[in-house]
This record gives sequence, structure tokens and C-alpha cells, in this order.
Amino acid sequence: MNTLTNSKNRPAYTLAEIAAKTGAFLDGDGSVRIDSVAPIATARAGDISFVANKIYAKHISSTAASALVLDLETPCTHLPVIRHKNPYLTFAHVVDLLYPEITQVTPGQDPTAIIDPAANIESSSAIGPFCEIRRGSRIGANCQLVSSIFVGENVSIGNNCTLYPGVRIMNDSRIGNKVIIHPGVVIGSDGFGFAESESGLKKIKQIGWVEIADDVEIGANTTIDRGAIGPTRIGRGTKIDNLVQIAHNVEIGQNCVIVSQVGISGSTRIGNGVMLAGQVGLVGHLEIGNGVRIGAQSGVPKSVPAGKTVFGSPARDIMETKRIEASLVRLPELIKRVRQLEKKLNE
Amino acid sequence: MNTLTNSKNRPAYTLAEIAAKTGAFLDGDGSVRIDSVAPIATARAGDISFVANKIYAKHISSTAASALVLDLETPCTHLPVIRHKNPYLTFAHVVDLLYPEITQVTPGQDPTAIIDPAANIESSSAIGPFCEIRRGSRIGANCQLVSSIFVGENVSIGNNCTLYPGVRIMNDSRIGNKVIIHPGVVIGSDGFGFAESESGLKKIKQIGWVEIADDVEIGANTTIDRGAIGPTRIGRGTKIDNLVQIAHNVEIGQNCVIVSQVGISGSTRIGNGVMLAGQVGLVGHLEIGNGVRIGAQSGVPKSVPAGKTVFGSPARDIMETKRIEASLVRLPELIKRVRQLEKKLNE
Amino acid sequence: MNTLTNSKNRPAYTLAEIAAKTGAFLDGDGSVRIDSVAPIATARAGDISFVANKIYAKHISSTAASALVLDLETPCTHLPVIRHKNPYLTFAHVVDLLYPEITQVTPGQDPTAIIDPAANIESSSAIGPFCEIRRGSRIGANCQLVSSIFVGENVSIGNNCTLYPGVRIMNDSRIGNKVIIHPGVVIGSDGFGFAESESGLKKIKQIGWVEIADDVEIGANTTIDRGAIGPTRIGRGTKIDNLVQIAHNVEIGQNCVIVSQVGISGSTRIGNGVMLAGQVGLVGHLEIGNGVRIGAQSGVPKSVPAGKTVFGSPARDIMETKRIEASLVRLPELIKRVRQLEKKLNE
Repeated sequence: MNTLTNSKNRPAYTLAEIAAKTGAFLDGDGSVRIDSVAPIATARAGDISFVANKIYAKHISSTAASALVLDLETPCTHLPVIRHKNPYLTFAHVVDLLYPEITQVTPGQDPTAIIDPAANIESSSAIGPFCEIRRGSRIGANCQLVSSIFVGENVSIGNNCTLYPGVRIMNDSRIGNKVIIHPGVVIGSDGFGFAESESGLKKIKQIGWVEIADDVEIGANTTIDRGAIGPTRIGRGTKIDNLVQIAHNVEIGQNCVIVSQVGISGSTRIGNGVMLAGQVGLVGHLEIGNGVRIGAQSGVPKSVPAGKTVFGSPARDIMETKRIEASLVRLPELIKRVRQLEKKLNE
Repeated sequence: MNTLTNSKNRPAYTLAEIAAKTGAFLDGDGSVRIDSVAPIATARAGDISFVANKIYAKHISSTAASALVLDLETPCTHLPVIRHKNPYLTFAHVVDLLYPEITQVTPGQDPTAIIDPAANIESSSAIGPFCEIRRGSRIGANCQLVSSIFVGENVSIGNNCTLYPGVRIMNDSRIGNKVIIHPGVVIGSDGFGFAESESGLKKIKQIGWVEIADDVEIGANTTIDRGAIGPTRIGRGTKIDNLVQIAHNVEIGQNCVIVSQVGISGSTRIGNGVMLAGQVGLVGHLEIGNGVRIGAQSGVPKSVPAGKTVFGSPARDIMETKRIEASLVRLPELIKRVRQLEKKLNE
Repeated sequence: MNTLTNSKNRPAYTLAEIAAKTGAFLDGDGSVRIDSVAPIATARAGDISFVANKIYAKHISSTAASALVLDLETPCTHLPVIRHKNPYLTFAHVVDLLYPEITQVTPGQDPTAIIDPAANIESSSAIGPFCEIRRGSRIGANCQLVSSIFVGENVSIGNNCTLYPGVRIMNDSRIGNKVIIHPGVVIGSDGFGFAESESGLKKIKQIGWVEIADDVEIGANTTIDRGAIGPTRIGRGTKIDNLVQIAHNVEIGQNCVIVSQVGISGSTRIGNGVMLAGQVGLVGHLEIGNGVRIGAQSGVPKSVPAGKTVFGSPARDIMETKRIEASLVRLPELIKRVRQLEKKLNE
């Protein structure tokens, strides 16, 4: 293999090699050497770049990149290109190729980590400084607990997970394989449940837990509460952004995308392949069907059937919300027109 | 006492015992043994369950639970029931009975904790690993500082408080008794105050503090800023959910419920028994009266008198907002109708 | 200098000294001694106070403060006053004078801190307990890393920065001088980028970084993601409140004010002097011009030219949104009026 190493100890490849390794179609000179990825507007020689959004296509003619990743149609004659019908996926593979995974913490247990003798940790996993792992917990193979992580009692964590600094996994949480948890995430904190009583609000002890399936990723400072009774569940392959709130007994299906600052209230159930855009709020006890898409800042007061796209606060079918929004601009003038009609009719 | 212990080292009781201990009315066979609480749809023999929301009442006939907690009216003849006019409160007591409080950290001071000699900690309190407690701070009796908690200078914490991992209590904060603070909460960070100057924004040094009364609970990753001058105050019995922002010099009364992702701007004062649903935003310097209820995602630009229920962005009386929302759906068609009227009149 | 020291080891000054040191105009008896700042409603003898918002001007006549900071016009004859055309800025200077900066952590490196031998830390900086600083990182002079802070690999931090407990600075972040970072902030976590594939969502490895310029302040539990490729940038003098989300490749200019719970989606570019009020959401790939102001809870779906003030969800020119809001209240009645017109015309 004709692999080069650049100054940053990253590998370099020819474009032909990159096309072959990523299953893309080579369009142009395959001998150009690529060692970095860069944004199209600031790329330089040796870089491969990408049109992440069609508004950046204007940069294709002027970029200083040595090569581009494009779809099958976008014209580009002055630069070598690798093409794929899913260029974003190809781009992801190119990044993986040029930027090998970094070890976040060396295997073994940092001497400052406090690990209960009754915890069970595979020897291939790495436990960084200032971590605490309590009794009854189990951590699988090849995990990285980077630094200052709390793992409560009776927690299970699968294989190949990465927990970034400051993650807190509370008692009884169950986490699958290849889960990535970013800094400051809290999993298994108490849900928000109180009964009214004569002496004020009485806490409902939260005796449930959290279950996170394989291939889930959870963004920084997101909070996922344990069930009041029974589990809060996040399904396989679901991706959650930063500062999201997931309340007790929420169940989220597979391959969902939950964008930043979304809030999901208690016991709401979300199907597979659902997309919740930023700052969406869902009230409790809803059913959100498979494939539903909910636009940014929407407030969802009732269940949404599978396949629908809703938007607005309150969320309605997106076309209806768009029609209403377009009409709203005309409302002040409409009031005047009605007044004129009334005047005419009363003449 | 005929108390049994189940495999999880939790107590078991007969339903008659549970009814007696929680002050509920026994309706049916009191001899059935109960050792767990479970959701009505997934309960099994030995479990007691509960109808948390009327939409789950359909499960009453088919549940495999051994008993239910219900109100005084809901019919149920095939299962023994304990009944109370406030079944949610009874349920809370049942959970307390079957799931005794867990010690989060054993009393004493973990050897890794760094405690200033000029801090004053009652010997019955437990200070877990990686905690830091600075000079002039005082911690009362029976507190649990679970792990990795920062307590700044001149902080006072009362008796029977639980601080979960990663809580940060900044200098001069005053915390009452029986306060529960979930992971990642920040109390006493600087408020957001800047004066415009010719050289940019000049920080207003934040010299106030935070006061948290008894029986307050604060959800994960919530932030409560210190006053600019004087206190930010949270009143007795108030419950705050996850990811809530409380700005400098906010004052919140007693027994309020502040749901997740609410933001309260500086110097706004909130009365007693106020309910703020999820993602509500309040601008600064408002007065929110006692008993006010504010619906989810509302944006509140002005003060709200006691007892009112408001909703929407901008928040209006909830009935008015509902009327407007219902009318909005008809707006596109209304524009057409007005055009037709104009046409007719111009004929 | 006739400086006194009060019981709290803070300095005291005469009002004449305060006026001279802050460049304000003395109006009244300059000999009164001042040692504290307090809110106008609760101030006592020895305090100087301030009218932070015109709604508090009613307290001027009754305050027990010994002196006030006012603008050049507001009448006040019964108390000595220092006056300035920018009283808020003068107040900021008064606070600085009466409340000298507190050292958060004593210089040197706490023995519990874990500092890689290949990190480079100026000796005047203080590294508190439970901090971890990884290889290749550089920390300038007079910094305070208060407690439990994570600094990843190849991070650079300038001079005179304060990092409060629980801050996490991930690999490759670059932080300028005089930057203040409040507890729980996460800088440089992965952006939220995934490509659809046949086997689910494929993570786009986030290989960019974060750049924070001088004089930036970042509020508690805020999250700033690294660029997907290239930087996420925060410009000089910009102030960010608590619980804000800044996504990958966002670029924010100088002297912006970003209030709590704002969310800024990926690759959006914000000019200088922009003000985003609380809970605003911006979609990705926008251009927000210099001096733009965006009202609370606005949802911004498209770019905003320099100098504009927009408001609402979707955000429109603020006057247009206000007109629409005023009209909305009349919509239910308008529908009735149109029905009556139709009836009349059909008679």
C-alpha cells in the first residue's frame, strides 16, 4: 500500500486509493496526493473538500483544494473529483480514512480512579483520572472513560463505548455497545414527579432506570432521567445533540435524530426514524409515529401519526402552518379591508 | 409486623398492611403480598400498579398486577385495590414503603476529598470522593455529597441535603434543609450583566449570592446565578426540573413547579404555587402572582396577576390564546372570503 | 489616600473619592463614607445604590442608602449622588472599587492535579484540585483553573483566564486572554453530524476545533461544539450566558451578547455587536449582519441583514411582528364580522 505519512502523523493517500477505499467513482487524475480535509472556502493543496450545502457550490470554481467529493451530477472539470450518489456518506468515509481514531485514554485504570472491588471491568477498557465506579457495575471491553466520570451502582456498560469527561451515569442505568457520551451528560437522574399534599409537594420516589441501546450518541450536557417506575429507553442508532432533556419513561425508537435543546416530556413514545429539530418541545404521554419529522421550535401538544411532517407551536401539518404564516402577514391589512367593506355596506 | 423481604432485599407487605400504613381504603383481598411497583401495562404478580394518566385506564382490565392504587370511583372488581381520594399521593407513599431510601454515600469523609480545615462539617454527613469544600463553609447533619462536588467559600448547607455528582456550589450560597440537587447543577455562578463602554462590554462584577430554602429540589444541569447585588432566592418546597436557567436576582416563592428548560430572566419575581410548564421564557423585572399557571413554551413579556392561567408567545389569557389558535386555522380561507366580498361589492 | 477598611476586609471610600476614581460628577456631600453596594429597596447606611431599571425609580425617595449613582438628569435632592451619562458603567466601576477581585485558587499546582509533563503552564497560573491537563497543552500567565477542570490535548489558553469548576476543554481548543468560563461549560465537544447510510446514521468524524478570542465570557453549562472541519469561532469581547448551544462551525463576531438558552445551528455566521435574546433559535448556514438584534424566543429561518431588529417565530421585522400580534387578538371577532358581511350580501 502506497500510504504516506504527513507532518501531523496522519496518513496520506492518492485520490485513486481514496476512491477505491470508499467505494466512490474516480473522475479525473487519481494520482493527486491527499492528506487533509478542509472547508471548500479555505482548503489548500493536499486537501480534499466537500460541498456540505448547496449554498457553498459557488466555491467549486475557486477552491484551492486538490480534490472534491461530489454527487454524480454536479459539474466540475478543473479538479479531480470522487463521486458517489451519497456524497455525504463518502465524505464521512474519507474523513475516517485520513483521520484515524484517537485514543482518548490509555488502557488500564488510572491510579486516581476509585473502583469498587465489586465492579467488573474488562481489562481492555481504560478508566481515566478521577473516575469513580461503584459496586455491582460492569464495563465491557474496549471502553474509554476519559476523565472524571461517575458510574453509580449496578450500571452496565457494553463494549466499545466512549464516555467523555464529566459524564454521570446514575445507579441501575444500562448502556449498550458503541455508545458515545459527550461531556457533562447526566443519565439516570430522578424524573420530575410530585404529588400534591396538604404539606406541599411530595416527591414520588423515582425507582425506574435508563436503557440506552447500541450505537447511540448523546451530546454534551444532555440529561436523560430514569423512569418513575420502569425504564426510560433510547433505541439503537439514535443520535441526540447537546442540552436535550429527556424525561422519565420516555421511549425513543431507533435511528432517530434529536437536535439540540429539544425537550421531551414524561412517558412520550417516539417511533423509529423520527427527526426532532432544535428546541422542539413535546408534552407528555404522546405517541409520535415512525418517520415523523418535527420542525424547529415546534410545540407538540398531541400525538402525531407515522410519516407526518409537522411544524409550529402548536404543531400542525407543515403545509398548513406555512399557509397560516403566509396569511398572517396579510392580517393587519385584512382588518382594514373588512372595515372598508362594512363601511360600504352601511352606506 | 408481618414484613417479608424479597430477593432484592426490599421489604414485602400484604395489601392490608400497605393500606393501613398509607392511610388508604382497602377494597378487596388484603392478604395478597406485594413487593414491587410496576407500570400497569408490564406489571406482574407481586406488583402493585397505578393509573398515572386516564389514558392508561384501558389497562385496568388486563393488567397482571396483583393490586392497584385507584381513586374512590374508578371501578375495578377483578383485582384488590387500595383507594384514596388522592391516589397519586397514596402511590407516592406506597413507593416509599416498598423502596426504602438508598444511602448514596457512606458517612464520613472520603480520603480523596479536599476539605479546608476552616470548613465545618457535621460528623453525620458523608463527603464522597473528589469533593472539594472550601474555607468558611458549613455543612449540617446527615448530608450526602455523593461524588465530585465543589463547595466554594462561605457556603452554608443545612441538614439532610443530598448533592449528586458534579454539583457546583459557588461562594456565598446558602442552602436550607432537605434540599436535593441533581448532577451537574450550578448554583451561584455569575449573573449576566455588562455595561456598554467605549472599549466594549464591561463586566458588572456579580457580588450577590443565592439562597435556597428548605425542601427544594433542583434538576440535572440546571443553573442558578447569584444576584448582581443581593440574593437570588428559591422559596421553600419549590421543585425545579432539568436544564432550567434562573438568572440573577430572580425570586421564586414557595411550592412552585418549574418544568424543564424554563428560562427566567433577571430580577423577575414569582409568587407561591406558580406552575411554569416546559420551555417557558420570562423576560426580566416581571411580577408573577401567586398561583399563576403558564403553559408550555409560553413567552411572557409582562407581569401576570395572581391566579391567572396564561399561554402562548406572547402569553395571553389561555382562553384567548385558544380562541386565536382556533381562528388561525381559518385565516387562509378568510382572506379568500374577504376577496370574494370585495368582488361582489365592486360588481 | 483616605481609604478605610470595613469589617468584611473590603475597602471603604468617601463619595468624593469614589466620584474621582470613577470619573463621575459629585452632586452633594462628598464626605459620606461608602463601603458596600446594595439594591435600592434594601440598602442601608454605608451603602451606595443604583436604579438598575426605571421601574425602580420610585424607591429613590425612600431608600436608606447613603448615596446613589444616577444619570445626569434624574432628580434627587435628599441624598448625595454621583452622576454620569452612563450610570450603569459608573456603577460597574464603583463595584470594582468596593469589591476587589477575589483569588479563586492560590497560584501553583494542587498536588491532586494531573498535569502531563508535555504540558506547558506558566508558573504564575494556579491549577486547583482534581484538574487534568493533557500533553501538548499550553496555559499562559495568571490563569486560575479553579477545580476539577479537564484540559485535553493540544489546547492553548492565553493569559489571565479564569476557568470555574467542572469546565471541560476538549482537544485542540484555542482560548485567548482574559476569558472567563463558568462552571460546567463544555468547549470542543463533537458537532452533531451524521450521514444516512443503509445501516443507519454514520457519524461524520468531527475533526475541527474551537477558537475563542480575548475577553469572552461563557455562562454555566453552555456547550460549544468543535467544527466538523475547520473552526467554530467566538469573537473578541462576546458574552455568552448560561445553557447556550453553539453548534459546529458557527462563527460569532465581536462584542455580541448571547442570552441564556439560545441555540445556534451549524455554520451560521453572526456579525459584530449582535444581540440574541433568551431562547432564540437560529437554523444553520445563515448570515446575521452586524448590529442585528433578535427578540426573545424568536425562531430565525433565514439570514438577517445588518442593523435590523427582528422578532417572532418565524422572525420578522419587529414592527411587522408587533402589528401581526396586535391584529391577532382581533382575529376571532374578524371571522364573525366577515360572516355577517356575507349574510348581509346574500340577503
